Amino acid sequence: MAIHRNPGGEISINVAPRTIEDYALLLERELQVSLSQLEGRAPLLSRMAQYHLGWIDPAGEPTDPEIRFAVQGKRIRPQLAFMSCVAVGGDPVVAAPLAAAIELLHNFTLIHDDIQDRSPNRRHRATVWRIWGDAQAINAGDALFADAQRTLLRTGTTAIPAETLLHLVDEFNRITIEIVRGQVKDLEFEQQGSVSPDDYLSMINDKTAAILRFAAWAGAIVGGAPVETAERLGRFGESLGIGFQIRDDVLGIWGTREQTGKDQGDDIRRRKKSLPILMLMNAAEDDETTRLRDLFASDEIDADGVAEVLAMMDRHGVEAAATEQVAHYHAQAADSLHAAMATLPDALAVDLEMLIRRLDTRSS
Amino acid sequence: MAIHRNPGGEISINVAPRTIEDYALLLERELQVSLSQLEGRAPLLSRMAQYHLGWIDPAGEPTDPEIRFAVQGKRIRPQLAFMSCVAVGGDPVVAAPLAAAIELLHNFTLIHDDIQDRSPNRRHRATVWRIWGDAQAINAGDALFADAQRTLLRTGTTAIPAETLLHLVDEFNRITIEIVRGQVKDLEFEQQGSVSPDDYLSMINDKTAAILRFAAWAGAIVGGAPVETAERLGRFGESLGIGFQIRDDVLGIWGTREQTGKDQGDDIRRRKKSLPILMLMNAAEDDETTRLRDLFASDEIDADGVAEVLAMMDRHGVEAAATEQVAHYHAQAADSLHAAMATLPDALAVDLEMLIRRLDTRSS
Repeated sequence: MAIHRNPGGEISINVAPRTIEDYALLLERELQVSLSQLEGRAPLLSRMAQYHLGWIDPAGEPTDPEIRFAVQGKRIRPQLAFMSCVAVGGDPVVAAPLAAAIELLHNFTLIHDDIQDRSPNRRHRATVWRIWGDAQAINAGDALFADAQRTLLRTGTTAIPAETLLHLVDEFNRITIEIVRGQVKDLEFEQQGSVSPDDYLSMINDKTAAILRFAAWAGAIVGGAPVETAERLGRFGESLGIGFQIRDDVLGIWGTREQTGKDQGDDIRRRKKSLPILMLMNAAEDDETTRLRDLFASDEIDADGVAEVLAMMDRHGVEAAATEQVAHYHAQAADSLHAAMATLPDALAVDLEMLIRRLDTRSS
Repeated sequence: MAIHRNPGGEISINVAPRTIEDYALLLERELQVSLSQLEGRAPLLSRMAQYHLGWIDPAGEPTDPEIRFAVQGKRIRPQLAFMSCVAVGGDPVVAAPLAAAIELLHNFTLIHDDIQDRSPNRRHRATVWRIWGDAQAINAGDALFADAQRTLLRTGTTAIPAETLLHLVDEFNRITIEIVRGQVKDLEFEQQGSVSPDDYLSMINDKTAAILRFAAWAGAIVGGAPVETAERLGRFGESLGIGFQIRDDVLGIWGTREQTGKDQGDDIRRRKKSLPILMLMNAAEDDETTRLRDLFASDEIDADGVAEVLAMMDRHGVEAAATEQVAHYHAQAADSLHAAMATLPDALAVDLEMLIRRLDTRSS
């Protein structure tokens, strides 16, 4: 491995890093700089941020490495930025501020989403608003977003031209508006009786896929790729992102407790309007529609109701149809990836190929 | 006047604009571009933003010009950016994106503050959260902040070097973190028994003065000022900002209904820990301290209690002491302004001089 953590905890880099573990350390080093910028006259601010990222417990004590690892999640978004940079022949060290900015942007939206959805827990720990209240949790998200911008600017103008960096910052904020727009629609869907699968797909395009598109596109840009290659990698990221979300939706219904830590049908129980449910509502016959409307009008659906909805889904082949959608978007992602790589002599896209396969078959 | 609004509502500019009315039109034109960037698949998003800025009513109908004018507030922050640009010999047209970005940043913080403070009204209209709920109001603020960044980037690199613009964006986010930090402290103060006047001053330095410092500093930068001049103008903005907030605090207690639309002592009734109250708590004798603690332990202070606190303030000369603080910071602002102007051959600082005087004696 090219990157080492010294006994004092400091991270040093010797030669060009290329593994996922390398990327994780590069990211962590960058996040440390970012979070230090939140320190100051209001210690609560950096405490909330550090807690949310899994570094400390609510009392401010450092967490065990396993907890830290579990809380930080899959980190697909920053990984994609690193891999895209490397795929076009770039040095991943240059992509570290970008990767960290993306991870901070994502975490800012998670903190605010948890308030909006009244989620009590995230990755087996209490959410920020549950510990410090809504008002301070809003502050934590706001500060993390501003910090994400400063992090992105650390890409610097020795790595890429100043004009290019300005363009990156503009895109970063453009996709943030898309993410917020997706969240506006998602909250509206909860109040709406019916949502078409198409409306749902355009919502997740904004809410989930836009940041993956940005990660793949911007990773290529900081790696020095031509504009056309970067755009194709952006499309790759977008398709991957939609597939990623639908796979999440499939796991939310047919994932076992072993896979997801939740019982089968959990998203049905919570009446979450995810794609399989919308597909069912779309395919349902008249009497099924009436029954579904009744079930979804209650606050929570009980075990019998969940079993009933699962049986309806079986009848209409919803699992196969949704899984086919995942495959469709992943195939689209693969096409864009190959188109991007065809424009480059030294393609190093093996990690990105692997990423599609990893996401295709993931079960958690 | 140099700027005209055509019958169709379009704004056209003929020659170099220099009046406050010109700045208002330049600002509005820029805000129109910014808000159009929020349009798209979630119409609610731009509707919330347009409502908050006073352009439309909750149903989406355009508001009357008088209402629009009343809702938009004093707009000291963008004005300061324009004036600072002109004071160093710059063209205010160049400062328009900066001024709009500052106004959007300010309004993003207002939307979130209103949620955090549970404020039912702002400038005589229902707050965004009261109409659309907390969750969507959080989205409105988030999107406005991202939009503010894109607005700032429209300053462009024909006006200033790309490196300078990158520096502006970094500072913009640095002061946003300061503003959030100030808000974290402000919310903490509400839970705290005692707050020293010094802690309060450092809180308002973050929460209120940082954005005025940025407006004056960045206005000078886009106007082409040397670094040292811009820094001095920044200090001018900061002192002006602290004076501005203390003047607000004084009006919150001794302002008449005619001046503020609220009864005298309104901030006492609401138990707001503003500077005069902290000064009183600091100066109070033992028995007064006990009495104050009792009064401030209740949910709201009644008319008799307000009169009692006002009498205590009289006894300790708090109004004079607080007004003296305003004068102190305004004198400091004047000093920094003169120091800044001494470095420039063609000083055009008359508007900034006037601004200090306007804020010094303002009664609303």
